[in-house]
Amino acid sequence: MNEQLKPKDALIEAASRLFKLRGYCGVGLNDIIAESGVPKGSLYHYFPAGKEQLATAAIHYTKALVMDDIQTVFAGIANPIDAFQAYMYGLSKAFGEGGDPLGSPIGTIAGETHTTSETIRLACDSTFKDWQAIYAEKFLEAGYSKSQSSSLAISFHALTEGGILLALTMKSGKPLEAIAEQIPFLLAEK
Amino acid sequence: MNEQLKPKDALIEAASRLFKLRGYCGVGLNDIIAESGVPKGSLYHYFPAGKEQLATAAIHYTKALVMDDIQTVFAGIANPIDAFQAYMYGLSKAFGEGGDPLGSPIGTIAGETHTTSETIRLACDSTFKDWQAIYAEKFLEAGYSKSQSSSLAISFHALTEGGILLALTMKSGKPLEAIAEQIPFLLAEK
Repeated sequence: MNEQLKPKDALIEAASRLFKLRGYCGVGLNDIIAESGVPKGSLYHYFPAGKEQLATAAIHYTKALVMDDIQTVFAGIANPIDAFQAYMYGLSKAFGEGGDPLGSPIGTIAGETHTTSETIRLACDSTFKDWQAIYAEKFLEAGYSKSQSSSLAISFHALTEGGILLALTMKSGKPLEAIAEQIPFLLAEK
Repeated sequence: MNEQLKPKDALIEAASRLFKLRGYCGVGLNDIIAESGVPKGSLYHYFPAGKEQLATAAIHYTKALVMDDIQTVFAGIANPIDAFQAYMYGLSKAFGEGGDPLGSPIGTIAGETHTTSETIRLACDSTFKDWQAIYAEKFLEAGYSKSQSSSLAISFHALTEGGILLALTMKSGKPLEAIAEQIPFLLAEK
């Protein structure tokens, strides 16, 4: 079973690596076949609907990776401000010099496809909502109301997505580091 | 002179509209020619280096548009928290239902090209720094230290970019509205 799953995972990981370098549109199926070393027939076996289906799988794979990351950081740090700050510092390392973040660039894929592929847009939308639900839970635990926890979760998520975009554009982990430094100020109870 | 500039502006505006719908990579020069109604020869006259040069011009055009927007909002509202909140509410309207934001989707273009076009990456980088400089100035005026003003400016900018991404993905101005509601909490002096 595991043996059979390997080419599928290799395709998802290769697609994710290439999407990170060139975006969704800049990557063709032949690039993914070459990058993965998986035969073309396997790609059409696992993803008969082609690139859109593979991208959707890559988004789901990234969703799970990121949820694990968040939950690992949050499980180890009870204080919510410290936990959110630690997660942001982790992003600054992953997206800084020498970092190699796993998964697909969901922000970029969402920006490219939000008007052209409803399938991909909905996969990004559901991913974003699931991440926000974990953030909201942490705010709730810290005693914020349900409604404020939900808005703060959206705000923290926007900080991560925007911060990653700035890190990629500036080729530096510094923007995410600057945001991480400000987390205690931004989230401190008033 | 103005007569001569018109086709150039029409090309920049058409390119921006299409980039918003399909990203940088998803738009070809022929699409831009069709959308603008400008003859092919004019495109090569104004942008002899092609799409990359046109995208760079579209980024500079958007930079100026957004700087005007920010400065207009900030000039009318002395209190920095009210000013940042008003700007975020403005984004929630522009990117919400029925909104029609002008300019190019710089976040998406940056995400697509950060490893493939150093010319475009640097144009995005300089745009981001110029916007952040205006935000930093407003924090400085409010009495924050130079170093904290700079980090808060990066954080506010990340909130706008991330919030826009969420609005596009969720096809709703609500994420930006939720962030705007939290601005007084996030930025209140402690």
